[in-house]
Amino acid sequence: MKNTYFLPLGGTGEIGMNLNLYGYGEGKDIEWFMVDCGVTFSQAGLPGIDLQMPDPTFIASQKEKLMGIILTHAHEDHIGAMPFIWPFFKCPIYTTEFTAALLMEKFDEYNIDYTNKIIIHNDGEIINIGNFQVKAIGLTHSIPEMNALLIKSPSANIFHTGDWKIDKDPIIGDGFNKEKLLDFEDIEIDALVCDSTNAMTPGISGSELSVKNSLEEIIGKIEGRIFLSTFASNVARLCSVAEAAAKHDRHVVLSGRGMHRIVNAAKSVGLLGGLPDFVDEENAGYLPAEKTLILCTGSQGEYRAALSKIARDEHQHIVAEKGDTVIFSSKIIPGNEAGIINLQNQFAKKDIKIITGKDEFVHVSGHPCQDELIEMYNLIQPKSIIPVHGEFRHLVANANLAKNNGIKNSLVIENGTVVKISNKDVSIHHQVESGRLYKDGKIIIYDYESPSNERSKISFTGLIVISIVLQNNKIKSKPKIKMIGLPEFDEEGIKLSDWVNQALDNVISSKNKSGNLESKIKNAVIRQIREVWGKKPKVEVIFH
Amino acid sequence: MKNTYFLPLGGTGEIGMNLNLYGYGEGKDIEWFMVDCGVTFSQAGLPGIDLQMPDPTFIASQKEKLMGIILTHAHEDHIGAMPFIWPFFKCPIYTTEFTAALLMEKFDEYNIDYTNKIIIHNDGEIINIGNFQVKAIGLTHSIPEMNALLIKSPSANIFHTGDWKIDKDPIIGDGFNKEKLLDFEDIEIDALVCDSTNAMTPGISGSELSVKNSLEEIIGKIEGRIFLSTFASNVARLCSVAEAAAKHDRHVVLSGRGMHRIVNAAKSVGLLGGLPDFVDEENAGYLPAEKTLILCTGSQGEYRAALSKIARDEHQHIVAEKGDTVIFSSKIIPGNEAGIINLQNQFAKKDIKIITGKDEFVHVSGHPCQDELIEMYNLIQPKSIIPVHGEFRHLVANANLAKNNGIKNSLVIENGTVVKISNKDVSIHHQVESGRLYKDGKIIIYDYESPSNERSKISFTGLIVISIVLQNNKIKSKPKIKMIGLPEFDEEGIKLSDWVNQALDNVISSKNKSGNLESKIKNAVIRQIREVWGKKPKVEVIFH
Repeated sequence: MKNTYFLPLGGTGEIGMNLNLYGYGEGKDIEWFMVDCGVTFSQAGLPGIDLQMPDPTFIASQKEKLMGIILTHAHEDHIGAMPFIWPFFKCPIYTTEFTAALLMEKFDEYNIDYTNKIIIHNDGEIINIGNFQVKAIGLTHSIPEMNALLIKSPSANIFHTGDWKIDKDPIIGDGFNKEKLLDFEDIEIDALVCDSTNAMTPGISGSELSVKNSLEEIIGKIEGRIFLSTFASNVARLCSVAEAAAKHDRHVVLSGRGMHRIVNAAKSVGLLGGLPDFVDEENAGYLPAEKTLILCTGSQGEYRAALSKIARDEHQHIVAEKGDTVIFSSKIIPGNEAGIINLQNQFAKKDIKIITGKDEFVHVSGHPCQDELIEMYNLIQPKSIIPVHGEFRHLVANANLAKNNGIKNSLVIENGTVVKISNKDVSIHHQVESGRLYKDGKIIIYDYESPSNERSKISFTGLIVISIVLQNNKIKSKPKIKMIGLPEFDEEGIKLSDWVNQALDNVISSKNKSGNLESKIKNAVIRQIREVWGKKPKVEVIFH
Repeated sequence: MKNTYFLPLGGTGEIGMNLNLYGYGEGKDIEWFMVDCGVTFSQAGLPGIDLQMPDPTFIASQKEKLMGIILTHAHEDHIGAMPFIWPFFKCPIYTTEFTAALLMEKFDEYNIDYTNKIIIHNDGEIINIGNFQVKAIGLTHSIPEMNALLIKSPSANIFHTGDWKIDKDPIIGDGFNKEKLLDFEDIEIDALVCDSTNAMTPGISGSELSVKNSLEEIIGKIEGRIFLSTFASNVARLCSVAEAAAKHDRHVVLSGRGMHRIVNAAKSVGLLGGLPDFVDEENAGYLPAEKTLILCTGSQGEYRAALSKIARDEHQHIVAEKGDTVIFSSKIIPGNEAGIINLQNQFAKKDIKIITGKDEFVHVSGHPCQDELIEMYNLIQPKSIIPVHGEFRHLVANANLAKNNGIKNSLVIENGTVVKISNKDVSIHHQVESGRLYKDGKIIIYDYESPSNERSKISFTGLIVISIVLQNNKIKSKPKIKMIGLPEFDEEGIKLSDWVNQALDNVISSKNKSGNLESKIKNAVIRQIREVWGKKPKVEVIFH
């Protein structure tokens, strides 16, 4: 019997790198389409890995079965993996104009030919993919043109929320309109596949308009130069800041590549009409401090971003001085705490005032809090919920909230779980392999074969390389030693290289000639260094 | 003219590794005493460094001038560096009984002989060190027996707060007693050297009794097994948990080395009388879930701590199951977010409930918030304030708060700044060298000569070692190559080692024999690998 299936390969059990598949068919004969194809940024423990993305092997091994990719919106965790994964499929890509503008820029950067492959749809349009009829439904989020998906297969109806919030005053685009969701009142939704990011947070996320009003008030009270950092992709926020600045007679300087990239994309699709022009960075120095607002990248403390450069006095055109104010109109993405705090301390040291969400109302989240989730449950009235877009604590919170608000079934799953969705229920069908791809330099590599583990290990233990010339199975001359990442001296002031030499001498002069020379050397050196250093270095032996 | 000086070598401009010096004298003839000698735990960017501590070179280079060390309390950031720094000085150590118990345990661990060197004082006692008369004044904090210091030199009076809060119901020890501070009303305090940790936080920190009451209520509502993790050094909290558990007929199991260590120290000085006995870990399995509370280490997500082991099902005696509850009676120390979140997700995946400070009232800070700081300013009425124990943002906040509350002078300084304190004012005198010592394995090393930088670099770039045998200045046989931490293949599936060989062949077969062979090889290999990988590996060449 043909069935409808849902399979997340990324973004379920984690925040980031979303990649979801919906399939319809029987046995091995299932046709799929993909929803989103995103990345996660690097993290501690994976040194030298710039990006991570879902391992698409499951679908790549049957690539003729992938009918298309729908991109719900342009955040990196939803489109960032496209340049690395899509070229393998070259299937049709369905998305809206703004998302397409940013995607095309990405593809151009990697010289990827996408001619005739991107199909633009508007809010409310139907996309036919294989056996599916998918309706794009514009919801509010922290980036323009986010679309939820009403997915109809011959055997089930699914509402895939994408990333959303209820914002009646989103500054850019239409406000959240529940009519769009009531519109399909006559359809019974079998499964709600729902954003869980803020499922642990009570109340509502708040509107962009309320942030705008607050920023207007805050900016009005500040005297010196203002640096305001936010997520560049939040076009509404950029608009709000520009308008708030104009109201208080400040010119807005754009700083940072991300800001320019988004502003260009937004302008190209007609999203920033009516705003005063931004001032070029090169001209920022000519403006009086009290007439300046610098809208810059770097709210996460990124070392190379504009705000960090300014803090270090390394920016080519812009300086920050005593009396200035830095506003972080953003949240802290977990893992970035140390960098952000370090940045704030650099400003504090210069007697520059810092305003964060702890001090004033300067930011709202783009994801639904509990009251918004409950409203969604009530609007959609699904038979079941499958929480996605969250770590396990978020998925569980979303499931429990749904249960407490009238949704009978919930299914907490993880990446790689194939769920069967019918008009009766949702159930775990089977598990497929899932994992990650890493971008290491420009090479894309499977997580299980990544050299970052070995690099991480050496970063704790250092490395000793011993090179030996053998002649007629005898050591010809004194072995050469390279020690990388070890202390030079032990606690008594004896060189660690002397200890290595001594261990080598012992092995070489030993009368016991049985056993493998390489492992005898390795063991002796590791044992000796462990004794004086307390750690076991990696040892490599080269024989000539 | 003889003057009084203050010099922080650690803990000012950072949270952690406190080390302060107070001196009296003239020119080079200044006698000093030290207040506290702590560590900071490892951080990102310093792989393989277990501990950091202040570089004491300034005082070590004139060690006969150090008259003694006063330890205000037993937290690691105040005593943790003693086993590594004190043996160089062997000066008298002044502290209270509980702190001494933990210090002696540390010294014993490192086989350090401290016979007759630890001088125990009580709350209110006077310590005479060199030209100084120092009065220990017990204040409340999150560990027993924290003492502030009233420091009198012939030319100035200083109040060194140590770490403190206003807690009228601290569970262990006397409540905050302002009489102790009013007691020296007739003394004019020239400088208040003051804890800044919570200077950005409005209101008050709250009392341990209020946490106890809240925990009692929370525990009463829970049905399954309870895991409660907190900072082991907070003896009052351990007491509160034990009493709350007893009230609801739960036995308390202690889990984790830190818990046992603190409980033993506390018992040895008579601090835990009247509590029911703790249950041994080995016997935890015999208790019914609803009668059990496991008090465990690991609130910061430490990989090897009890709570993490339990989450991974790797604990020898204790299991956590669906229906159990984990209470984090603690805050998140910045930098530990990722580990803590990971731990919480492990429990969420097992359907184990998690309670943190976001959900319920389960923790109070041990440091003064703004209302408490203001009360201290008013009690002490110092002429000047020198904020310490904080990052720059905290120091600036403390200085500004003091300014807004009637303290005329404030001096925000950093580690290495020598401040002259007189009965007129405080002023920057000069700057001395300051820095850090790292504990790498068991070797203590200066930050500037630490191999962790090189290790960190290699963790991003990997390493290629090329070993070459020369004979009569000619390369004898094929060079041997070891590649560590590089991907095996490039994007086209060509081995990176083939690329290295090709680069080597080009150099070897080149007709241009001028120039240094080693740097020619390095440059050629780096250039080649950069082209296919996008990153520049470290290259080492060995010649035989």
